[in-house]
Amino acid sequence: MTIFFAELVGTLLLILLGDGVVANVVLKNSKGHASGWIVISMGWAFAVAIPALIFGSYSGAHFNPALTIALAVIGKVAWSKVPIYLAGQFIGAFLGAVLVFVLYYDQFKSSENKADKLGVFCTGPAVRNSLINFLCEVIGTCVLVFGILGMGAQNLKNGMGVLFVGFLILAIGLSLGGPTGYAINPARDLGPRIAHAVLPIPNKGDSDWSYAWIPVIAPIVGAIMGAVFYIILF
Amino acid sequence: MTIFFAELVGTLLLILLGDGVVANVVLKNSKGHASGWIVISMGWAFAVAIPALIFGSYSGAHFNPALTIALAVIGKVAWSKVPIYLAGQFIGAFLGAVLVFVLYYDQFKSSENKADKLGVFCTGPAVRNSLINFLCEVIGTCVLVFGILGMGAQNLKNGMGVLFVGFLILAIGLSLGGPTGYAINPARDLGPRIAHAVLPIPNKGDSDWSYAWIPVIAPIVGAIMGAVFYIILF
Amino acid sequence: MTIFFAELVGTLLLILLGDGVVANVVLKNSKGHASGWIVISMGWAFAVAIPALIFGSYSGAHFNPALTIALAVIGKVAWSKVPIYLAGQFIGAFLGAVLVFVLYYDQFKSSENKADKLGVFCTGPAVRNSLINFLCEVIGTCVLVFGILGMGAQNLKNGMGVLFVGFLILAIGLSLGGPTGYAINPARDLGPRIAHAVLPIPNKGDSDWSYAWIPVIAPIVGAIMGAVFYIILF
Amino acid sequence: MTIFFAELVGTLLLILLGDGVVANVVLKNSKGHASGWIVISMGWAFAVAIPALIFGSYSGAHFNPALTIALAVIGKVAWSKVPIYLAGQFIGAFLGAVLVFVLYYDQFKSSENKADKLGVFCTGPAVRNSLINFLCEVIGTCVLVFGILGMGAQNLKNGMGVLFVGFLILAIGLSLGGPTGYAINPARDLGPRIAHAVLPIPNKGDSDWSYAWIPVIAPIVGAIMGAVFYIILF
Repeated sequence: MTIFFAELVGTLLLILLGDGVVANVVLKNSKGHASGWIVISMGWAFAVAIPALIFGSYSGAHFNPALTIALAVIGKVAWSKVPIYLAGQFIGAFLGAVLVFVLYYDQFKSSENKADKLGVFCTGPAVRNSLINFLCEVIGTCVLVFGILGMGAQNLKNGMGVLFVGFLILAIGLSLGGPTGYAINPARDLGPRIAHAVLPIPNKGDSDWSYAWIPVIAPIVGAIMGAVFYIILF
Repeated sequence: MTIFFAELVGTLLLILLGDGVVANVVLKNSKGHASGWIVISMGWAFAVAIPALIFGSYSGAHFNPALTIALAVIGKVAWSKVPIYLAGQFIGAFLGAVLVFVLYYDQFKSSENKADKLGVFCTGPAVRNSLINFLCEVIGTCVLVFGILGMGAQNLKNGMGVLFVGFLILAIGLSLGGPTGYAINPARDLGPRIAHAVLPIPNKGDSDWSYAWIPVIAPIVGAIMGAVFYIILF
Repeated sequence: MTIFFAELVGTLLLILLGDGVVANVVLKNSKGHASGWIVISMGWAFAVAIPALIFGSYSGAHFNPALTIALAVIGKVAWSKVPIYLAGQFIGAFLGAVLVFVLYYDQFKSSENKADKLGVFCTGPAVRNSLINFLCEVIGTCVLVFGILGMGAQNLKNGMGVLFVGFLILAIGLSLGGPTGYAINPARDLGPRIAHAVLPIPNKGDSDWSYAWIPVIAPIVGAIMGAVFYIILF
Repeated sequence: MTIFFAELVGTLLLILLGDGVVANVVLKNSKGHASGWIVISMGWAFAVAIPALIFGSYSGAHFNPALTIALAVIGKVAWSKVPIYLAGQFIGAFLGAVLVFVLYYDQFKSSENKADKLGVFCTGPAVRNSLINFLCEVIGTCVLVFGILGMGAQNLKNGMGVLFVGFLILAIGLSLGGPTGYAINPARDLGPRIAHAVLPIPNKGDSDWSYAWIPVIAPIVGAIMGAVFYIILF
């Protein structure tokens, strides 16, 4: 399997499971409606861990342009491969969001709140404040990449490394997800936001493009910071 | 231990624990009443993982006709053994549901809502829409079988493979369970539905036979899709 | 370390953590007040798993007279050691309950509901029905002992066996705990019930002695059933 | 990496994730607002486990002056290194709390309750009772250190030891955290309390200095007790 397909199918699964859990919790007439932050943060944790286990040996299971770019910056991924990674990630994220739209179509129809519908696809700030929202995504992604590199250095075998990556995602969601909903991944946010813009979602609102740059730029900044911190410290 | 008994007892445990957690959460006068989707989805995850660990080396721990058929389609299980698997699975599922009925008898008596009582045994759609409900069960089971094969290829030892199967069930429940309650297994749904039809449940409603074909047919379609995707991609 | 001390200190820890989580959730003026069944069932799971990991190599970490007796019945524990096990277990359970009483003293004072106060120490039925309550404890303990033996036969190393025992406790709590609160252990129930009877708990009610025989006798019956099923099936 | 930096960065991460989860749950206008004790206790568990995995091989990953002192008392850490550990821990804890303040600034502004704001930084009693509050922190830390030593003696490999330390933190939080909020660590409490005192938190109350000695002294007493119990018993 090529890197492109591993990243595409892996990111598709990530968004199918990740946007899926948000749909399950926030939309009306869903079995998991209003089941809370523990469901959302555990859902995203396994949305990362399961495809990471399946596709890790084929592409390293990035599923995240910020991680790919940060690894290129510190020389762990060749810059020539970065476009292949990013293409797979954005296409996969878009397709995953389309699938969530189809599966939860009746729940989208049942819900009135337009912000909830957008929130299934992409992140938005609890309180709009560009500086702090940006900083939140920077710190969240910095912790993500520093953690992936620092835990990766332990060379855990037999799936334990992937399990801890899942717990890292869980920890970031539980602890740092409050202000912005932890995009920490440009593809995770922009791919589904484009899907929201083009899909015929019943009674949808706008796609909040004025916020869209933050979960794209800030994770890249934070990921590079995390990788550089790691290199400096260890 | 023969395949038949491994599948029968394993599926009995699966349904005892799986239908049991639904009874605990949805029925009145139960200690776990209204404890939410996290309890239901974790309950089903370990309802699969625990018997999978116990019976894995005897039958492969399918407990699911859709998985058995998909494995036969791709040549990993002999077709001649399929009837043995299915017999064990359906009998086990029926018996597990009978046990849940007995243990939660007073809770069934305390609850008025007929849909809740049926929901202990088998799945039903949050919004009735045959096409999308069918698709939901197809995609959920496709993810299940693709995940089992993809994670299985990592050859995890020491129980880690089974643990990740549990987390896969958890992920499917958290993320894809919202529209239909994730049957993703014909025996899990039809066996207990028959139990609901024949058992003397206090003040029960009908067994919703008009829906019953979806959680039987769709998981088989989805499981074959998942297995074929896996073969094509890897 | 002798078997006696391993069982005593291990069971003390089990009840300190297990009764502790119930106190945290059901009593008023506690930080975890009303945090639900997921907290209670996860609390008991780790209340078992953590001392099991610490004391496993010294006594086998039974912490449960029903398990000890069942293992004696199938010849895995010498009958001559059974009194030593049981003495450690009951003394440890009593002392653990005393500690919970001390730590949560102000919460006991803040709570009016006498059933809640008793429920910190020992189990009671959601609906009183001796036959079904008895059966619930039989089946719960049968699953416990069958699971411990069946999972134990996989010879998991490096703490994974203990982790799965924790998940087994979690599964029993989530799925089978609804009708009676899953004592599944005579020492866990009787030791703290005696503590409830003798401790100066503010404004306490009676210790519900009419029910006390069920969580003592039924788990022993169920444990022997589980062990015998295991021997027959495997 | 030196011990000083490992403890500083590790404790910074601990408090960023730990105080972060409290901010997410208790402050208004946060995505995880009111998501309950399961979120808080899981958040703290991984706040410990993740940096413990990253920094364990550099400093032993104490992140806790009480643990460091107890290990010195039983001769497992040289007294000459204790000041280095403590300096890293207190500085890291302070800086982690500053980061949480910045990231959740708008949530602090949105919340009126002054006790909630203080509760993000440091612990406080559910019911004020110096003797019992002190005892709670003693017992909690005693279980922590006894557990770390007892589980550590099993020599678990491949990250399992760290995972069980996370589960130990989870268990203490679920079961023993009700009366005082389980500081069980002088740096975790005092460092952020100083941050609360000096930071320009919108509409903040006092820093409850009259309580501050308990989560500093009691954990040290409890940790030494736990270490001594361990030495005596094993």
